[in-house]
Amino acid sequence: MRGAWIVDQGVIDVTSAFLVTRRLHDEQTPFQHLEVYDSPRFGRMLLLDGAVQTTEGDEFAYHEMLAHPALCAHPHPRRVLIIGGGDGGLLEEVLKHPVERVTMVEIDEAVVRASRRYLSTICGGAFDDPRTQLVIGDGLAYVNDTPDRFDVALIDSTDPQGAATGLFSAEFYAQVGARLTADGVVAVQSGSAVYQQELIRSVRRNLRASFPVVRTAVAAVMAYPGVLWSFTIGAKSRDPRDLGPEIAGRLEGFRLRLYTPAGHRAAFDLPPYLLEQVETE
Amino acid sequence: MRGAWIVDQGVIDVTSAFLVTRRLHDEQTPFQHLEVYDSPRFGRMLLLDGAVQTTEGDEFAYHEMLAHPALCAHPHPRRVLIIGGGDGGLLEEVLKHPVERVTMVEIDEAVVRASRRYLSTICGGAFDDPRTQLVIGDGLAYVNDTPDRFDVALIDSTDPQGAATGLFSAEFYAQVGARLTADGVVAVQSGSAVYQQELIRSVRRNLRASFPVVRTAVAAVMAYPGVLWSFTIGAKSRDPRDLGPEIAGRLEGFRLRLYTPAGHRAAFDLPPYLLEQVETE
Repeated sequence: MRGAWIVDQGVIDVTSAFLVTRRLHDEQTPFQHLEVYDSPRFGRMLLLDGAVQTTEGDEFAYHEMLAHPALCAHPHPRRVLIIGGGDGGLLEEVLKHPVERVTMVEIDEAVVRASRRYLSTICGGAFDDPRTQLVIGDGLAYVNDTPDRFDVALIDSTDPQGAATGLFSAEFYAQVGARLTADGVVAVQSGSAVYQQELIRSVRRNLRASFPVVRTAVAAVMAYPGVLWSFTIGAKSRDPRDLGPEIAGRLEGFRLRLYTPAGHRAAFDLPPYLLEQVETE
Repeated sequence: MRGAWIVDQGVIDVTSAFLVTRRLHDEQTPFQHLEVYDSPRFGRMLLLDGAVQTTEGDEFAYHEMLAHPALCAHPHPRRVLIIGGGDGGLLEEVLKHPVERVTMVEIDEAVVRASRRYLSTICGGAFDDPRTQLVIGDGLAYVNDTPDRFDVALIDSTDPQGAATGLFSAEFYAQVGARLTADGVVAVQSGSAVYQQELIRSVRRNLRASFPVVRTAVAAVMAYPGVLWSFTIGAKSRDPRDLGPEIAGRLEGFRLRLYTPAGHRAAFDLPPYLLEQVETE
């Protein structure tokens, strides 16, 4: 077959269509509609409720940007919490650092299962790493109940709809802040820098209620709506923007494809048209 | 009406669809199919042969990046040549500099006419500026025949198909080089950094035959396929990458929305995954 087109359902007045050659998986889970496609351009693609979540071809951009700026902003991250991220790509990036334990709380076991089966190039052996603690459950409840403390928390959620809505609230960020150690850092995928600027403003406002320093970086994530994607960091002490060549040692041997010490500051220096949209308050 | 969808025809296996509310213009010119739509997200949009050329909402990003890095890389640009660029957005950016004359050679008079009529927010009064010399004609023939010399040339073409194919050739770049003064600079829109990497490699190779320094920058142009767009500069003397805060004075009062002296170097520092695709040779 030449292929069929799938249309990303995540944005309302502009969208992307991808030529796909094969549907590998199609499942209605208790939480969402999960599909895996193969495509000539991006390789295998994971969709939830019709929105592209990750692809083999561009996952590195999203996962590197959500993991490394936050981890480098902490002086010595030992314990890391991931909320969401069921495909395992973020977990794999975190495990490149000399952390002691990564706790990943994913609400939908089917995402982990599908990723381990179809997206091994994305998750690698991350789920089998002895430092990985996988919890299948609700992230909001977990953060509320856990007695554990973490140095860095990474919020790798879907769009703020359904089960994920609470993961963008000031209450949730306050709970996360209470679970973080003194130099704690939280990083949030805060949506499309082109189509979800109101979301970015909301995330920044809600984080600021619990974190003295809030910074937003952008990077191109090729298969996402609008491509230019935002990552917002809340920090208890060190300004995550003020990092530079000195973090090179911590990333040595990581073989990163997007994130570099030289490009760190530039990712946080938003162009004027974005700055006026998201940093007005 | 709620609106209809238009699908960008410019890329084969991934594409963008835009919700539009009204078609303002539809014309088969001697060279191409020209349409103007209105859209809630990007305002008015100009399409040629079904591919989005420019929109009111994101034209600043494309035109600033094609104009200012090249103009700033020349010590004192007085005479500027634009090939293509019939919408006038690039012309308007160039005229912000204290240039003496800008010669614009556009093959399709209908594009200029439609832009003056429907896209005045993009071209402003640029066509009426006394420094503007508009030539309706073939850019290849013009460069071959003109006795004039220029400090900077900007190649604002459509994709390398049909009439525009020759504008990406080594022969054309050699002719341009022969029309440029000693510190001459040429800037080329070199396509999508996501979907046209072979084009970027070809532009770089072809420029290198006539220009000792060749550099590629990227920036997000929101309505273009893949968003992340490339701009490739060939220079006879000064390395266009090695500019920084010292150019701030030249841009004072320009009210730019994307391009800044602080972000100049970062635009040229391609991330590793792009560097290995386009700077291999």
